[in-house]
Amino acid sequence: MTIPADPPSAQDILAAAARIAPYAHATPVLRSRGIDALAGCELHFKAEHLQRAGAFKFRGACNAVFALDDARAAAGVVTHSSGNHGAALALAARLRGIACHVVVPEGALRSKVAAIAAYGATLHTSAPTTAAREAKCAEVQSATGATLVHPYTNPWVIAGQGTAAMELLNTVDGLDLLVAPVGGGGLSSGTALAAAAFAPQCRAIGAEPSGAADTFESLRRGERVAQFTPDTVCDGLRTLVGEPNFALLRRLRVQVVTVDDDATVAAMRLFWQRCKQLIEPSSAIALAAVLGHREIFAGRRVGVILSGGNVDLDALPGLFAR
Amino acid sequence: MTIPADPPSAQDILAAAARIAPYAHATPVLRSRGIDALAGCELHFKAEHLQRAGAFKFRGACNAVFALDDARAAAGVVTHSSGNHGAALALAARLRGIACHVVVPEGALRSKVAAIAAYGATLHTSAPTTAAREAKCAEVQSATGATLVHPYTNPWVIAGQGTAAMELLNTVDGLDLLVAPVGGGGLSSGTALAAAAFAPQCRAIGAEPSGAADTFESLRRGERVAQFTPDTVCDGLRTLVGEPNFALLRRLRVQVVTVDDDATVAAMRLFWQRCKQLIEPSSAIALAAVLGHREIFAGRRVGVILSGGNVDLDALPGLFAR
Repeated sequence: MTIPADPPSAQDILAAAARIAPYAHATPVLRSRGIDALAGCELHFKAEHLQRAGAFKFRGACNAVFALDDARAAAGVVTHSSGNHGAALALAARLRGIACHVVVPEGALRSKVAAIAAYGATLHTSAPTTAAREAKCAEVQSATGATLVHPYTNPWVIAGQGTAAMELLNTVDGLDLLVAPVGGGGLSSGTALAAAAFAPQCRAIGAEPSGAADTFESLRRGERVAQFTPDTVCDGLRTLVGEPNFALLRRLRVQVVTVDDDATVAAMRLFWQRCKQLIEPSSAIALAAVLGHREIFAGRRVGVILSGGNVDLDALPGLFAR
Repeated sequence: MTIPADPPSAQDILAAAARIAPYAHATPVLRSRGIDALAGCELHFKAEHLQRAGAFKFRGACNAVFALDDARAAAGVVTHSSGNHGAALALAARLRGIACHVVVPEGALRSKVAAIAAYGATLHTSAPTTAAREAKCAEVQSATGATLVHPYTNPWVIAGQGTAAMELLNTVDGLDLLVAPVGGGGLSSGTALAAAAFAPQCRAIGAEPSGAADTFESLRRGERVAQFTPDTVCDGLRTLVGEPNFALLRRLRVQVVTVDDDATVAAMRLFWQRCKQLIEPSSAIALAAVLGHREIFAGRRVGVILSGGNVDLDALPGLFAR
């Protein structure tokens, strides 16, 4: 099977769910009466920070790795990723027993790079520009024959990410709204696809950092913003939305709301404190969106995709460096 | 019912379990294949950081509050606690609809004091000495008629704390060892009691900070050390072991091992990173004991009581104060 040219469908999400079932965790759905009271709505948190490799990314990566036919798989896979997708692809490749190459930009978060290496991937460093990392990827591809598994535009990846929302919709009846963070758009477009297919009354909402609001702006303009300089604490959401992801979000009429970093950090702190769950800023933004946009969420039953928990503990000097 | 004079028995643990069942969470048991591999044994973590009010303390406090007869209960309860027990008692009292007074030493951890206040208790401040806080407690008792619920010597409290181990033993078959942190000895003596009663082949081990190793020293000497100056990051374990707690630990031949703070912080970091669970230092010490004492734990099936998750987030400036 070569990478499909068409955008994924509901059928592809079902196929992904079956394909990753032996490897991925069916993560729990968490509740907090305290946070419900603060938010004024009923929140159901899909705990993807408890997914293997610490983020939803394992779903898409695993789907892509196991969708390859044996001949293609034998040459391995390659990707560029500063973080969770790299680790997820490395783990998926190890589970299939194939090689994995990850192109990491200089200056990437140390804890995330260490995780990629720990799962046995071969690391390649590039300058931190899109052009440089794509060039390095192409170089590795031509040298090894590895298949590129793009972090968010690959249709298998999008379908895989949609399985988190599908599981949540299967677990919790009557969700009115489903909130997911927006970075490259793999998770948000997969979530929107799952909602449209499996719970048409449920509306998907994207949460995007104010300092990286290219998707918000692209939807407003009706065309994809091609350049921007992100400035946000959400290290997983600094990417420009992908073309197929933008097309899906637009076609499915997904509303994207923006969230300031201060609100995201406050929401993260609240969730750590109340739920004792270590979620990363790029996850907490979805809760922050709920707390900051009562006009959308008040009184509703809301699913929140907590995308990951790969917090950089080196950035927490208080307890760990004494 | 007045506070029993005798130390608690296995029957008291069973009674406590029935009494608190409508209010307490039956917390999950967590696994980590990564940590098992590092530790060289099979670990089953009892997740009391997910207990109500964020610690096992709710079990004992709830048992004590609901064991009181109506007449006694009407006058309320009082305790001295710098932290988790105060919050737990406040919540239990609120659930029964009675008053709760908490004597808090000056300089107590801000986040824990805030939690006590949030559960509706009346706060009383005292100097941070045993004499001062006991005097203030006596003052509140005589003014209000409230019943003192001591954080760890109260037999209902000990029996209540033992329900965590009982649940773990009911959930996981064939545990060889059960590790619990040692502070005042409420949890460790309750755990030892549960192990002796419900799984006689399972040995209870206590984990105590090197900088607050009065129980270790008391067991070595065969008599209770009466004075010491604690110096440890484990803010929940700075107390001297209680008399009835020491008597139980001695009678049940519990082995106590000591752990340096560096090892505790490293274990906490490991657990945060791998399991995305926010456990406090006073909990992480139990995992640190396992990682540091392979001669005891290697190859065994081990239960670990993760006692609580009330981390002081103000002590983590990196992400929260930018």
